[in-house]
Amino acid sequence: MKFPFQNVALIGKHKAPEIAEPLLGLAEFLSGKGLHVVVDSLTGEHLKAHPYPVMNLGEMACAMDLAIVIGGDGTMLNIARTMAPCHVPLVGVNMGRLGFLTDLTLENMQDTIAAMLEGKFVTEQRLLLSARVLRGDAEVCSGLAFNEVVVHRSNISSMIEFEVRIDGEYLYNQRADGLIVSTPTGSTAYAMSAGGPILHPSLDVIELVPISPHTLSNRPIVVKSTAVLEILTHRCSDIRLRFDSHSSYDLQLHDKIVVTRHPEPACLLHPVGHSYYHTLREKLLWNQTL
Amino acid sequence: MKFPFQNVALIGKHKAPEIAEPLLGLAEFLSGKGLHVVVDSLTGEHLKAHPYPVMNLGEMACAMDLAIVIGGDGTMLNIARTMAPCHVPLVGVNMGRLGFLTDLTLENMQDTIAAMLEGKFVTEQRLLLSARVLRGDAEVCSGLAFNEVVVHRSNISSMIEFEVRIDGEYLYNQRADGLIVSTPTGSTAYAMSAGGPILHPSLDVIELVPISPHTLSNRPIVVKSTAVLEILTHRCSDIRLRFDSHSSYDLQLHDKIVVTRHPEPACLLHPVGHSYYHTLREKLLWNQTL
Amino acid sequence: MKFPFQNVALIGKHKAPEIAEPLLGLAEFLSGKGLHVVVDSLTGEHLKAHPYPVMNLGEMACAMDLAIVIGGDGTMLNIARTMAPCHVPLVGVNMGRLGFLTDLTLENMQDTIAAMLEGKFVTEQRLLLSARVLRGDAEVCSGLAFNEVVVHRSNISSMIEFEVRIDGEYLYNQRADGLIVSTPTGSTAYAMSAGGPILHPSLDVIELVPISPHTLSNRPIVVKSTAVLEILTHRCSDIRLRFDSHSSYDLQLHDKIVVTRHPEPACLLHPVGHSYYHTLREKLLWNQTL
Amino acid sequence: MKFPFQNVALIGKHKAPEIAEPLLGLAEFLSGKGLHVVVDSLTGEHLKAHPYPVMNLGEMACAMDLAIVIGGDGTMLNIARTMAPCHVPLVGVNMGRLGFLTDLTLENMQDTIAAMLEGKFVTEQRLLLSARVLRGDAEVCSGLAFNEVVVHRSNISSMIEFEVRIDGEYLYNQRADGLIVSTPTGSTAYAMSAGGPILHPSLDVIELVPISPHTLSNRPIVVKSTAVLEILTHRCSDIRLRFDSHSSYDLQLHDKIVVTRHPEPACLLHPVGHSYYHTLREKLLWNQTL
Repeated sequence: MKFPFQNVALIGKHKAPEIAEPLLGLAEFLSGKGLHVVVDSLTGEHLKAHPYPVMNLGEMACAMDLAIVIGGDGTMLNIARTMAPCHVPLVGVNMGRLGFLTDLTLENMQDTIAAMLEGKFVTEQRLLLSARVLRGDAEVCSGLAFNEVVVHRSNISSMIEFEVRIDGEYLYNQRADGLIVSTPTGSTAYAMSAGGPILHPSLDVIELVPISPHTLSNRPIVVKSTAVLEILTHRCSDIRLRFDSHSSYDLQLHDKIVVTRHPEPACLLHPVGHSYYHTLREKLLWNQTL
Repeated sequence: MKFPFQNVALIGKHKAPEIAEPLLGLAEFLSGKGLHVVVDSLTGEHLKAHPYPVMNLGEMACAMDLAIVIGGDGTMLNIARTMAPCHVPLVGVNMGRLGFLTDLTLENMQDTIAAMLEGKFVTEQRLLLSARVLRGDAEVCSGLAFNEVVVHRSNISSMIEFEVRIDGEYLYNQRADGLIVSTPTGSTAYAMSAGGPILHPSLDVIELVPISPHTLSNRPIVVKSTAVLEILTHRCSDIRLRFDSHSSYDLQLHDKIVVTRHPEPACLLHPVGHSYYHTLREKLLWNQTL
Repeated sequence: MKFPFQNVALIGKHKAPEIAEPLLGLAEFLSGKGLHVVVDSLTGEHLKAHPYPVMNLGEMACAMDLAIVIGGDGTMLNIARTMAPCHVPLVGVNMGRLGFLTDLTLENMQDTIAAMLEGKFVTEQRLLLSARVLRGDAEVCSGLAFNEVVVHRSNISSMIEFEVRIDGEYLYNQRADGLIVSTPTGSTAYAMSAGGPILHPSLDVIELVPISPHTLSNRPIVVKSTAVLEILTHRCSDIRLRFDSHSSYDLQLHDKIVVTRHPEPACLLHPVGHSYYHTLREKLLWNQTL
Repeated sequence: MKFPFQNVALIGKHKAPEIAEPLLGLAEFLSGKGLHVVVDSLTGEHLKAHPYPVMNLGEMACAMDLAIVIGGDGTMLNIARTMAPCHVPLVGVNMGRLGFLTDLTLENMQDTIAAMLEGKFVTEQRLLLSARVLRGDAEVCSGLAFNEVVVHRSNISSMIEFEVRIDGEYLYNQRADGLIVSTPTGSTAYAMSAGGPILHPSLDVIELVPISPHTLSNRPIVVKSTAVLEILTHRCSDIRLRFDSHSSYDLQLHDKIVVTRHPEPACLLHPVGHSYYHTLREKLLWNQTL
């Protein structure tokens, strides 16, 4: 991470015209502090005329020192997959409701970012997953996930069957709607809906959460993040691989999916005093009594 | 139910050549007792030459007094949907492992059926579900289910959103992978994998079991079987309706699915001494200690 | 139920001085309408001087046409166990937060009760459980429960073992922290915390919910309310029976607990337009998004 | 760990006369190899006359190079709590059924141990928990746990309320039957019955699993093993602290329980080729289909 930050990328939620005003306001504020501000090209399409240079995400990943994302957790997921391999730290601003990844608000954004530019921030590394699909000797698909990689039935089948190996060792054959391989970040997303535990985001672990498993004792399993997970599809060909609810890939019978920790973590910057447990209480409504 | 039984349908699991010999053996046994034996046309395709008349399922439903099914629970589900509306009682023979619906074995089949022909059986009524899809004023799809009707995401979306009404009253909006509307029979099938309770098969109830619901307090709900359930799809068009893992239908945005109890229950015949709880213990491995 | 109501019992939450004023206000309002108002003796201890006759709950159960309870669901549970056997209908007023059983508020109480006195109410029957403990030939304990009967480990043991029979038929041996036998009313109370489904309060069913069962496939089971449940304690003597979190009894090894539906249901009166599903949404925070 | 092993402790399950013969046979076998064999004093009470010196567990912990335990997982838990602080490695022999901690059988015991004495073994470190109870400024209780520390309601109360802090930071207030703080070893024991995930035993993590929590979104949480957990009891005085289902302590209102990782892990020795996942499949019946 290059600090102090000189080159700052501003990225907004896709197709959300309401971010135009606060984003340009923030750009002006940062420019006024002498920073080099660049606006994401997709975001820029929806802005009125402005004086800032425009780059696409890939260009930003190579050139920027910091990325500020205005949107929700979904936007952050997408940006993190691009920025993580290039070590660009991320700051998330939510547009209303507190997010797990977006802890600044539009209201406190300028003050908080001003403090961050002076070094008042907390750095957090979050692991990403890398998944590859092997068909015979060929790699036919690969991708990154910040929340989870999901192997799931597609539209025709009622259940899929697959085998899981961990570090080359047989774990189980399972019949289920699918299997979620989740990062700690993803543990409060889809994995939680399917019955998985909350994993503190600092943990170096990965969880496997079966979706509606046929065998009732098939519980979520947490393993170390350095494990090599192999998922082999059996008997059904109507299976799909999904990365973070973002992109997906149609699997064929006997495809092997290999999931590992991505070598580069995503780097999140939080305001000083940020509390993960506070976010958890807010998001899971633990403050409210029945 | 017409008793004593005169006209007996024999139906085997689809594409299971191993049922040929026991099925023809049973046919000979029943013929020898003076009964009129008819073989299902699909089953018959896989049998060697035999002297028994052949009918399709629809013809059997109109003409037979009793249907004997050799196969597994899946076969029974399919046959029950056809036979129930015509009040033809069903006997199930499993081909190895005890089933929830198939409680005779190939070994005890002849003796047990002989006893049943003399009236030594227990009758059990099981409710079926009827589902219709309304698109504007038109009914575009309808079908029966013995286990469950499922509204679920199809291949592209990561989550669906729908509204549920019970007897015209708003229950909830829900974001989830889908919703299972299950009979008591289906409570030990897919609904159980998704976290639903076991419902004794004699109960006049229906359960709604969300699949991986976004809101963690969205628990399975059991309501009376006379309830009219309406499911309205919101915001996502990539949704599918499934009947018993058997057939399915692609829904469109704003389709309304109406699920009600089918007016005619399926009638199962069990040997005297049949125990549902015994089957439950066997199937859920409660006899085995960790 | 005797209607129109002439004799009305007023009962307040125990040790809650804040109910004094609204309760006496209601008494005056009802007296002014010519009704015979009686105040519960325990409640009365905490009221300033007032002109209304005082009775204990047992006397009220014999003499009153209607019982109005100001408090929370816990108070309603206690009163219902006494009133149900004598067919006295109950109206519940909550003191702040909506309850499952208390659907009037202090604010709308007078208007709503005035309407109810004119017959504008909805009647709902709710089943109660009756439990007896047999030790050899002797009945050593008996009691009623509106929510649930719980058999649970007491303070020393780490797990208990018991056998369950339904209508004389063996269901299972189970090792667990305990077993909850719940009414539909209780399905949103302790049974829900232990993983049980929501049962619509109109259902004639009982659910058995194991607490932290050793065998992972031991799911909640719903059976018809006419079932006779027998629970036999095995191998551990440190077991306790609990009625509605209200009273409890120390069991001995080989005690048999028999749980059945109580012959008399509790009768709740709701305002016209009352919606169970509305209460469910409010109490389970389904209206709120994460 | 001192290797090669010279001083070997033999310890049998308490009050299990059937271990006498295999234990003395093993003693003879090890003596014959020139090792110094010592028998646990409690175990020794149930043995016929034998020539081996006897020590209690505390003496063994100071003097022995290896402890061989014949019994089940419960026996291993108890021995591990004593041996871990003194770095004595443990080998477990089960008396019938495979255990999570006891992976040798009576049949293969001599051959496997002979191989282990030659260095053919796999070493595994498993973390233990240390819990202390603070009352005002005084520490009134402390203990170790290999599986879990449990804070739970005792016999009178129906629910307890407590606050949890992690590393000084507020996590939540919770109403529940109790809270399990579990090691990875304990994740397949009580924590699993209460709904917790499986944690691979090599992980440096601790899980918090609520027991029948009042708030339905209160899911198990996994945190790093270096966390300092504080549990503060609120409003109910009838609360108990339990260590491994072994010993327990009555808490008072406002007691603070502090749970941390014990500085010394337990060291288990496994035969070469030992597979945790194999044990998992066997114990959770994953090999068996419904």
